[in-house]
Amino acid sequence: MNLKEEVVEKKQLYHGAIIDLERQTVRLPNGETAHREIVRHSGAVGVIAITDDERLILVKQWRAPIGQPTLEIPAGKLDDRDSTNTEHAANRELNEEIRLHAGHLEKITGFYSSVGFSDEYMTLYLATDLQPVADELPRDAGENLEIVKYRLPELKKLMATGQIQDAKTVMAVWYFELMQHQGR
Amino acid sequence: MNLKEEVVEKKQLYHGAIIDLERQTVRLPNGETAHREIVRHSGAVGVIAITDDERLILVKQWRAPIGQPTLEIPAGKLDDRDSTNTEHAANRELNEEIRLHAGHLEKITGFYSSVGFSDEYMTLYLATDLQPVADELPRDAGENLEIVKYRLPELKKLMATGQIQDAKTVMAVWYFELMQHQGR
Repeated sequence: MNLKEEVVEKKQLYHGAIIDLERQTVRLPNGETAHREIVRHSGAVGVIAITDDERLILVKQWRAPIGQPTLEIPAGKLDDRDSTNTEHAANRELNEEIRLHAGHLEKITGFYSSVGFSDEYMTLYLATDLQPVADELPRDAGENLEIVKYRLPELKKLMATGQIQDAKTVMAVWYFELMQHQGR
Repeated sequence: MNLKEEVVEKKQLYHGAIIDLERQTVRLPNGETAHREIVRHSGAVGVIAITDDERLILVKQWRAPIGQPTLEIPAGKLDDRDSTNTEHAANRELNEEIRLHAGHLEKITGFYSSVGFSDEYMTLYLATDLQPVADELPRDAGENLEIVKYRLPELKKLMATGQIQDAKTVMAVWYFELMQHQGR
Protein backbone atom coordinates (compact mmCIF):
# COMPACT_ATOMS: atom_id res chain seq x y z
CA MET A 1 0.00 0.00 0.00
CA ASN A 2 1.25 3.49 -0.86
CA LEU A 3 1.20 5.48 2.38
CA LYS A 4 3.35 8.46 1.37
CA GLU A 5 1.97 11.99 1.72
CA GLU A 6 3.53 14.70 -0.47
CA VAL A 7 4.11 18.08 1.17
CA VAL A 8 2.43 20.70 -1.05
CA GLU A 9 3.06 23.71 1.17
CA LYS A 10 4.54 24.42 4.59
CA LYS A 11 4.47 27.49 6.79
CA GLN A 12 6.16 28.21 10.11
CA LEU A 13 3.52 29.67 12.43
CA TYR A 14 5.70 30.12 15.53
CA HIS A 15 9.41 30.12 16.30
CA GLY A 16 10.03 29.63 20.01
CA ALA A 17 12.75 28.86 22.55
CA ILE A 18 11.90 25.15 22.92
CA ILE A 19 9.52 24.44 20.04
CA ASP A 20 8.52 25.69 16.60
CA LEU A 21 5.06 25.22 15.11
CA GLU A 22 4.58 24.38 11.42
CA ARG A 23 1.44 23.84 9.36
CA GLN A 24 1.62 21.71 6.23
CA THR A 25 -0.75 21.10 3.35
CA VAL A 26 -0.20 17.56 2.09
CA ARG A 27 -1.44 15.50 -0.84
CA LEU A 28 -2.74 12.09 0.30
CA PRO A 29 -2.15 8.89 -1.70
CA ASN A 30 -5.74 9.18 -3.06
CA GLY A 31 -5.05 12.68 -4.44
CA GLU A 32 -7.01 14.62 -1.82
CA THR A 33 -5.36 17.32 0.28
CA ALA A 34 -5.23 17.57 4.07
CA HIS A 35 -3.56 19.74 6.73
CA ARG A 36 -0.98 18.66 9.29
CA GLU A 37 0.08 20.52 12.45
CA ILE A 38 3.67 19.81 13.44
CA VAL A 39 5.61 20.77 16.57
CA ARG A 40 9.34 20.83 15.82
CA HIS A 41 11.75 20.06 18.68
CA SER A 42 15.55 19.70 18.76
CA GLY A 43 15.42 16.28 20.45
CA ALA A 44 16.19 15.11 23.94
CA VAL A 45 17.89 12.53 26.13
CA GLY A 46 16.54 10.64 29.14
CA VAL A 47 18.65 8.69 31.63
CA ILE A 48 17.66 5.63 33.68
CA ALA A 49 20.13 6.15 36.55
CA ILE A 50 20.35 3.23 38.99
CA THR A 51 22.31 3.32 42.23
CA ASP A 52 24.52 0.48 43.48
CA ASP A 53 21.78 -0.39 46.01
CA GLU A 54 19.17 -0.81 43.26
CA ARG A 55 17.30 2.46 43.42
CA LEU A 56 16.09 4.52 40.45
CA ILE A 57 16.90 8.22 40.72
CA LEU A 58 14.08 10.65 39.90
CA VAL A 59 13.75 14.41 39.95
CA LYS A 60 10.70 16.26 41.22
CA GLN A 61 10.06 19.47 39.31
CA TRP A 62 7.27 21.85 38.35
CA ARG A 63 5.76 21.33 34.89
CA ALA A 64 3.93 24.31 33.44
CA PRO A 65 1.89 22.33 30.84
CA ILE A 66 0.02 20.53 33.63
CA GLY A 67 0.44 23.08 36.46
CA GLN A 68 1.76 20.38 38.79
CA PRO A 69 5.03 18.89 39.98
CA THR A 70 6.08 15.57 38.40
CA LEU A 71 8.47 12.73 39.19
CA GLU A 72 10.70 12.08 36.18
CA ILE A 73 13.98 10.45 35.26
CA PRO A 74 16.75 13.00 34.54
CA ALA A 75 16.27 14.33 31.02
CA GLY A 76 16.91 17.35 28.89
CA LYS A 77 16.77 18.95 25.51
CA LEU A 78 19.69 18.62 23.10
CA ASP A 79 21.58 21.82 22.45
CA ASP A 80 23.49 22.71 19.29
CA ARG A 81 26.66 20.93 20.40
CA ASP A 82 24.81 17.70 21.20
CA SER A 83 22.95 17.03 17.98
CA THR A 84 25.30 14.26 16.90
CA ASN A 85 26.42 13.37 20.42
CA THR A 86 23.54 12.37 22.66
CA GLU A 87 25.99 10.71 25.08
CA HIS A 88 27.46 14.13 25.83
CA ALA A 89 23.94 15.41 26.57
CA ALA A 90 23.22 12.43 28.84
CA ASN A 91 26.38 13.08 30.86
CA ARG A 92 25.52 16.77 31.13
CA GLU A 93 21.97 16.11 32.37
CA LEU A 94 23.29 13.62 34.96
CA ASN A 95 25.61 16.34 36.25
CA GLU A 96 23.13 19.25 36.09
CA GLU A 97 20.14 17.43 37.52
CA ILE A 98 21.44 14.81 39.96
CA ARG A 99 25.12 15.80 40.39
CA LEU A 100 26.44 12.35 39.47
CA HIS A 101 28.85 10.92 36.92
CA ALA A 102 28.18 7.51 35.34
CA GLY A 103 31.05 5.03 35.32
CA HIS A 104 28.91 3.02 32.89
CA LEU A 105 26.63 4.74 30.35
CA GLU A 106 24.80 2.61 27.79
CA LYS A 107 22.33 3.55 25.06
CA ILE A 108 19.15 1.48 25.40
CA THR A 109 16.84 2.73 22.66
CA GLY A 110 15.34 5.84 21.06
CA PHE A 111 11.83 6.93 20.16
CA TYR A 112 9.55 9.74 19.04
CA SER A 113 7.64 10.96 22.12
CA SER A 114 4.38 11.79 20.35
CA VAL A 115 4.81 11.22 16.62
CA GLY A 116 1.23 12.17 15.73
CA PHE A 117 2.05 15.87 16.08
CA SER A 118 5.73 16.25 16.99
CA ASP A 119 9.20 15.27 15.77
CA GLU A 120 10.71 15.23 19.28
CA TYR A 121 13.06 12.23 19.42
CA MET A 122 14.44 11.01 22.73
CA THR A 123 17.49 8.80 23.15
CA LEU A 124 17.27 6.73 26.34
CA TYR A 125 20.37 5.75 28.34
CA LEU A 126 21.09 3.46 31.27
CA ALA A 127 23.58 4.92 33.78
CA THR A 128 25.18 2.83 36.53
CA ASP A 129 28.38 2.91 38.64
CA LEU A 130 27.39 6.43 39.76
CA GLN A 131 29.83 8.74 41.55
CA PRO A 132 29.51 12.34 42.79
CA VAL A 133 30.77 14.82 40.19
CA ALA A 134 33.94 16.80 40.86
CA ASP A 135 32.64 19.96 39.13
CA GLU A 136 28.95 20.85 39.24
CA LEU A 137 27.62 22.38 36.01
CA PRO A 138 25.26 25.36 36.44
CA ARG A 139 21.55 24.58 36.18
CA ASP A 140 19.28 26.44 33.77
CA ALA A 141 17.63 29.57 35.24
CA GLY A 142 14.40 28.53 36.89
CA GLU A 143 15.39 24.87 37.06
CA ASN A 144 14.29 23.93 40.59
CA LEU A 145 14.70 20.26 41.37
CA GLU A 146 14.35 17.82 44.24
CA ILE A 147 16.24 14.53 43.89
CA VAL A 148 14.57 11.32 45.13
CA LYS A 149 15.42 7.59 44.89
CA TYR A 150 13.08 4.60 44.92
CA ARG A 151 13.24 0.82 44.78
CA LEU A 152 11.04 -1.10 42.34
CA PRO A 153 8.11 -1.88 44.69
CA GLU A 154 7.87 1.82 45.64
CA LEU A 155 8.02 2.83 41.96
CA LYS A 156 5.13 0.52 41.13
CA LYS A 157 3.07 2.05 43.95
CA LEU A 158 3.86 5.56 42.67
CA MET A 159 2.63 4.49 39.22
CA ALA A 160 -0.55 2.93 40.66
CA THR A 161 -1.37 6.11 42.60
CA GLY A 162 -0.65 8.42 39.64
CA GLN A 163 2.37 10.10 41.22
CA ILE A 164 4.51 8.79 38.36
CA GLN A 165 2.64 9.87 35.23
CA ASP A 166 5.42 10.71 32.78
CA ALA A 167 5.94 8.48 29.73
CA LYS A 168 9.74 8.11 29.84
CA THR A 169 9.57 7.43 33.59
CA VAL A 170 6.95 4.67 33.13
CA MET A 171 9.34 3.23 30.53
CA ALA A 172 12.19 3.43 33.04
CA VAL A 173 10.18 1.55 35.67
CA TRP A 174 9.30 -1.25 33.23
CA TYR A 175 12.89 -1.43 31.97
CA PHE A 176 14.16 -1.58 35.57
CA GLU A 177 11.68 -4.42 36.22
CA LEU A 178 12.89 -6.30 33.10
CA MET A 179 16.49 -5.90 34.31
CA GLN A 180 15.56 -7.56 37.60
CA HIS A 181 13.85 -10.46 35.78
CA GLN A 182 17.02 -10.89 33.75
CA GLY A 183 19.15 -10.85 36.92
CA ARG A 184 21.07 -7.75 35.83
CA MET B 1 11.36 22.97 48.53
CA ASN B 2 8.76 25.29 46.96
CA LEU B 3 8.57 24.36 43.28
CA LYS B 4 5.34 26.11 42.28
CA GLU B 5 5.35 28.59 39.40
CA GLU B 6 2.56 31.21 39.37
CA VAL B 7 1.04 32.01 35.97
CA VAL B 8 1.26 35.78 35.51
CA GLU B 9 -0.11 35.91 31.95
CA LYS B 10 -1.18 33.47 29.27
CA LYS B 11 -1.91 33.92 25.60
CA GLN B 12 -3.21 31.47 23.00
CA LEU B 13 -0.97 31.79 19.94
CA TYR B 14 -2.66 29.14 17.75
CA HIS B 15 -5.94 27.23 17.80
CA GLY B 16 -5.77 24.18 15.56
CA ALA B 17 -7.53 20.94 14.72
CA ILE B 18 -5.33 18.68 16.86
CA ILE B 19 -3.35 21.08 19.03
CA ASP B 20 -3.44 24.60 20.45
CA LEU B 21 -0.33 26.59 21.32
CA GLU B 22 -0.15 28.76 24.44
CA ARG B 23 2.61 31.01 25.79
CA GLN B 24 2.74 31.74 29.51
CA THR B 25 4.69 34.20 31.60
CA VAL B 26 5.32 32.64 34.99
CA ARG B 27 6.78 33.80 38.30
CA LEU B 28 9.41 31.38 39.61
CA PRO B 29 9.75 30.52 43.32
CA ASN B 30 12.71 32.95 43.54
CA GLY B 31 10.56 35.82 42.23
CA GLU B 32 12.06 35.98 38.73
CA THR B 33 9.85 35.65 35.65
CA ALA B 34 10.21 33.16 32.80
CA HIS B 35 8.30 32.08 29.69
CA ARG B 36 6.73 28.68 29.01
CA GLU B 37 5.56 27.31 25.64
CA ILE B 38 2.70 24.85 25.99
CA VAL B 39 1.06 22.59 23.40
CA ARG B 40 -2.51 21.77 24.48
CA HIS B 41 -3.98 18.43 23.34
CA SER B 42 -7.30 16.73 24.12
CA GLY B 43 -5.66 13.50 25.24
CA ALA B 44 -5.36 10.07 23.66
CA VAL B 45 -5.61 6.33 24.14
CA GLY B 46 -3.21 3.58 23.07
CA VAL B 47 -4.02 -0.13 22.97
CA ILE B 48 -1.66 -3.08 23.44
CA ALA B 49 -3.66 -5.63 21.42
CA ILE B 50 -2.40 -9.21 21.73
CA THR B 51 -3.72 -12.11 19.66
CA ASP B 52 -4.49 -15.57 21.06
CA ASP B 53 -1.28 -16.82 19.42
CA GLU B 54 0.85 -14.23 21.27
CA ARG B 55 1.37 -11.60 18.61
CA LEU B 56 1.24 -7.83 19.14
CA ILE B 57 -0.83 -5.99 16.53
CA LEU B 58 0.73 -2.86 15.01
CA VAL B 59 -0.37 -0.41 12.36
CA LYS B 60 1.93 1.02 9.72
CA GLN B 61 1.02 4.58 8.78
CA TRP B 62 2.54 7.77 7.39
CA ARG B 63 3.55 10.36 9.98
CA ALA B 64 3.91 13.92 8.69
CA PRO B 65 6.09 15.20 11.58
CA ILE B 66 8.92 12.86 10.54
CA GLY B 67 8.02 12.37 6.84
CA GLN B 68 8.19 8.59 7.23
CA PRO B 69 5.95 5.62 7.94
CA THR B 70 5.97 4.24 11.48
CA LEU B 71 4.97 1.02 13.23
CA GLU B 72 2.70 1.83 16.16
CA ILE B 73 0.15 0.24 18.44
CA PRO B 74 -3.43 1.29 17.65
CA ALA B 75 -4.05 4.72 19.16
CA GLY B 76 -6.06 7.84 18.71
CA LYS B 77 -7.08 11.20 20.03
CA LEU B 78 -10.01 11.56 22.40
CA ASP B 79 -13.02 13.32 20.97
CA ASP B 80 -15.57 15.34 22.95
CA ARG B 81 -17.65 12.31 23.87
CA ASP B 82 -14.62 10.39 25.19
CA SER B 83 -13.20 12.86 27.66
CA THR B 84 -14.50 10.98 30.68
CA ASN B 85 -14.65 7.60 28.96
CA THR B 86 -11.30 6.50 27.60
CA GLU B 87 -12.54 2.89 27.40
CA HIS B 88 -15.03 3.98 24.75
CA ALA B 89 -12.18 5.58 22.80
CA ALA B 90 -10.04 2.43 23.12
CA ASN B 91 -12.86 0.28 21.71
CA ARG B 92 -13.41 2.72 18.86
CA GLU B 93 -9.71 2.77 17.89
CA LEU B 94 -9.59 -1.04 17.94
CA ASN B 95 -12.52 -1.08 15.52
CA GLU B 96 -11.35 1.78 13.26
CA GLU B 97 -7.72 0.78 13.02
CA ILE B 98 -7.55 -3.02 13.27
CA ARG B 99 -11.24 -4.06 12.87
CA LEU B 100 -11.28 -6.09 16.09
CA HIS B 101 -13.36 -6.13 19.26
CA ALA B 102 -11.72 -6.95 22.61
CA GLY B 103 -13.45 -9.54 24.78
CA HIS B 104 -11.11 -8.35 27.54
CA LEU B 105 -10.06 -4.69 27.82
CA GLU B 106 -8.01 -3.59 30.82
CA LYS B 107 -6.52 -0.22 31.74
CA ILE B 108 -2.78 -0.57 32.40
CA THR B 109 -1.56 2.93 33.13
CA GLY B 110 -1.61 6.54 31.95
CA PHE B 111 1.07 9.14 31.29
CA TYR B 112 1.93 12.53 29.80
CA SER B 113 3.70 11.90 26.47
CA SER B 114 6.10 14.84 26.65
CA VAL B 115 5.33 16.86 29.76
CA GLY B 116 8.12 19.40 29.19
CA PHE B 117 6.04 21.19 26.55
CA SER B 118 2.67 19.43 26.22
CA ASP B 119 -0.33 18.36 28.31
CA GLU B 120 -1.13 15.38 26.05
CA TYR B 121 -2.15 12.52 28.39
CA MET B 122 -2.43 8.98 27.06
CA THR B 123 -4.34 6.17 28.76
CA LEU B 124 -2.87 2.78 27.87
CA TYR B 125 -5.03 -0.36 27.60
CA LEU B 126 -4.38 -4.08 27.17
CA ALA B 127 -6.80 -5.81 24.77
CA THR B 128 -7.06 -9.60 24.51
CA ASP B 129 -9.69 -12.17 23.43
CA LEU B 130 -9.91 -10.37 20.08
CA GLN B 131 -12.73 -11.06 17.60
CA PRO B 132 -13.57 -9.50 14.20
CA VAL B 133 -16.06 -6.65 14.54
CA ALA B 134 -19.60 -7.02 13.20
CA ASP B 135 -19.84 -3.37 12.09
CA GLU B 136 -16.77 -1.51 10.82
CA LEU B 137 -16.62 2.15 11.88
CA PRO B 138 -15.50 4.59 9.16
CA ARG B 139 -11.86 5.66 9.32
CA ASP B 140 -10.85 9.31 9.39
CA ALA B 141 -10.30 10.88 5.97
CA GLY B 142 -6.70 10.30 4.96
CA GLU B 143 -6.19 7.53 7.51
CA ASN B 144 -4.30 4.93 5.47
CA LEU B 145 -3.19 1.94 7.50
CA GLU B 146 -1.50 -1.42 7.08
CA ILE B 147 -2.08 -3.96 9.86
CA VAL B 148 0.84 -6.19 10.91
CA LYS B 149 1.41 -8.68 13.76
CA TYR B 150 4.66 -9.71 15.43
CA ARG B 151 5.89 -12.04 18.14
CA LEU B 152 8.24 -10.77 20.86
CA PRO B 153 11.58 -11.80 19.26
CA GLU B 154 10.58 -10.02 16.03
CA LEU B 155 9.49 -6.93 17.97
CA LYS B 156 12.85 -6.75 19.70
CA LYS B 157 14.60 -6.96 16.32
CA LEU B 158 12.39 -4.16 14.95
CA MET B 159 13.38 -2.01 17.95
CA ALA B 160 17.07 -2.80 17.50
CA THR B 161 16.96 -1.83 13.81
CA GLY B 162 15.00 1.38 14.46
CA GLN B 163 11.84 0.26 12.64
CA ILE B 164 9.93 0.59 15.91
CA GLN B 165 10.73 4.10 17.11
CA ASP B 166 7.50 5.27 18.70
CA ALA B 167 7.36 5.77 22.48
CA LYS B 168 4.04 4.04 23.25
CA THR B 169 5.06 1.12 21.01
CA VAL B 170 8.39 0.66 22.82
CA MET B 171 6.34 0.66 26.04
CA ALA B 172 4.04 -1.99 24.55
CA VAL B 173 7.00 -4.22 23.64
CA TRP B 174 8.46 -3.98 27.16
CA TYR B 175 5.05 -4.57 28.75
CA PHE B 176 4.52 -7.60 26.49
CA GLU B 177 7.94 -8.91 27.59
CA LEU B 178 7.04 -8.38 31.27
CA MET B 179 3.77 -10.31 30.71
CA GLN B 180 5.77 -13.25 29.35
CA HIS B 181 8.13 -13.18 32.36
CA GLN B 182 5.06 -13.26 34.60
CA GLY B 183 3.60 -16.21 32.65
CA ARG B 184 0.52 -14.22 31.60
